Amino acid sequence: MIMQPEKGHFYAVGVGPGAPDLITLRAARLIEDCDVVVAPRSNRSEESLALRIAAAHIKGQEVLEQVYPMVRDQEKTRAAWAEVADWILPRLEAGKSVVQITLGDPLIYSTSAYLLEALAERVSPERLHIVPGISAMQAAAASFGLPLTLQEDRLTLMPATDLDAVSEALDRSETLALYKVGGGLPALRELLKSKGLLECSRLAYAVEQEGREQLFTNLDDVDASLGYMSAVLVHKAHKPWIA
Amino acid sequence: MIMQPEKGHFYAVGVGPGAPDLITLRAARLIEDCDVVVAPRSNRSEESLALRIAAAHIKGQEVLEQVYPMVRDQEKTRAAWAEVADWILPRLEAGKSVVQITLGDPLIYSTSAYLLEALAERVSPERLHIVPGISAMQAAAASFGLPLTLQEDRLTLMPATDLDAVSEALDRSETLALYKVGGGLPALRELLKSKGLLECSRLAYAVEQEGREQLFTNLDDVDASLGYMSAVLVHKAHKPWIA
Repeated sequence: MIMQPEKGHFYAVGVGPGAPDLITLRAARLIEDCDVVVAPRSNRSEESLALRIAAAHIKGQEVLEQVYPMVRDQEKTRAAWAEVADWILPRLEAGKSVVQITLGDPLIYSTSAYLLEALAERVSPERLHIVPGISAMQAAAASFGLPLTLQEDRLTLMPATDLDAVSEALDRSETLALYKVGGGLPALRELLKSKGLLECSRLAYAVEQEGREQLFTNLDDVDASLGYMSAVLVHKAHKPWIA
Repeated sequence: MIMQPEKGHFYAVGVGPGAPDLITLRAARLIEDCDVVVAPRSNRSEESLALRIAAAHIKGQEVLEQVYPMVRDQEKTRAAWAEVADWILPRLEAGKSVVQITLGDPLIYSTSAYLLEALAERVSPERLHIVPGISAMQAAAASFGLPLTLQEDRLTLMPATDLDAVSEALDRSETLALYKVGGGLPALRELLKSKGLLECSRLAYAVEQEGREQLFTNLDDVDASLGYMSAVLVHKAHKPWIA
C-alpha cells in the first residue's frame, strides 16, 4: 500500500497544518516524484503556505501557483477551479503526473474538493487520487494535550459561522472543533460563557506555523482580530462507557 | 517547528491507519531517534499493527510490546496503563527518550490518552508530547474520494454503539463518521435505510492495511462479521453557503 506517482495521474495531497515535518511520507514522495506541482493560494495571502511547507520536496518540477478568489459564491468558485482544471488536463493527457498540494487535509474544508469535482468530469476515477493530511484540529489537540475522543465520545467539526447550530452541537457532543472563527469570536465567547464552557475551551491560531502560531487556554486573552486561521476546541466531560 | 527527541521526554505518536507511508516525517524521525519504543497491542490481536507500520524505522531500539486488556472497565483499563507508566518512568528518569506508537491519531479513540493520563501524574507537561496521525476516517474518505466537509458542513465522529445517538447525529450533520461498527452493522443498516441514507453510506474495513482492506460502496454487500476495524461514512447533501 505504498503510493507511487503514475503517468497521467492526478494526486490531491494534504501537507498538514504548517510544520514541514507534519506531512506524510506518501505526500513527500509524491511531491518529489510528480512532474507538475499545483499550489493554490487565496487572493488574500501573499504566498502559498502549502508551497512553503512542501519546499524541501520541490526540485525543479513545473510549479503553478494559482490564485483563486476567496468568495462565498458557488459559481465564481467553480469557474475559478474549472480554469485550473483546464491548465492541468493537457498535462495529464501528455502523460505527466500532477500533484496539487493543499493545507491540512484535502477533504476537510479544502479547495481540493472543487478541483477534484472539475477534473472528475473529464478524467477517469482510477486516475484521481487523494492523500489525507493532518488537519488543524488534530494539531491543535496535540499542542494542547487534549483528547478529541475517548470511549463513547462524539466529536463535531463545524464552522463557527452559525451560532445557533454551534449551540445545538455543544449540547450533543463531548468535543467540538470550530473552524473559521475569525470575527465571530466575541459572540462565540459569549455563547460559551452562557453555557459555562469557557473553561473547557482553547483557541489555536496558525497552529504549527513557524513564527505565527499562538495558543490560548483562555479565550478572554484572544484579540478578536486574529482571524481566519483560528480553530477553537471545546472539550466537555467524557461520556462514560455504556454498560 | 521540527520536533527532535529530547532526553527524558515522552512522545505519543500516531502512525496512521496502516500503510507504512501514511506516517508523518515527524513520527518517522521520532521513532528512529528515540531510545525506547512502546508498542501496545490489545489482547485480541496477534501482533502490534502499529509496530508493523513503524518497522522500517526501528533499528535496535529497546521495544516494549505491551498487551493491554480490551475491556469496557475504567478501573481495569487505568490499572493496565499505570503498569506501562511504571515501566516507562525509570527510563525517562535515566534520561532516555521514549516513544509510544499508536494506530491512527493518539487523540482519536486511542489508548494513548490513558497512558498520557498516567504519565501526567508524575512527569512535567513540558516532557510530554503528542504527534498527530492520519485517522481511519480520513483514509477512508480519501479512498472513496468523498469530501468530509465543505463550506458550512458539520462532521460528526462517533462510535456506532448507541443507535439513538447516531439517529440524532444523522439529523444534525452533513457527514457522519462512525467507528466501532462491528456486530452492530445490521441494526445500523436498518436505521440508514429508514432514513433513506443507505445510498449515501460507505464502509471501509482495515483501510490502508495491506492484504486486509475492504471497501464497500453498498452496505448490503458487507458481511456483518467483519467487525471492529470498520468505519462507516454517511455523506448527505452539503449545506449551502450562508448568504
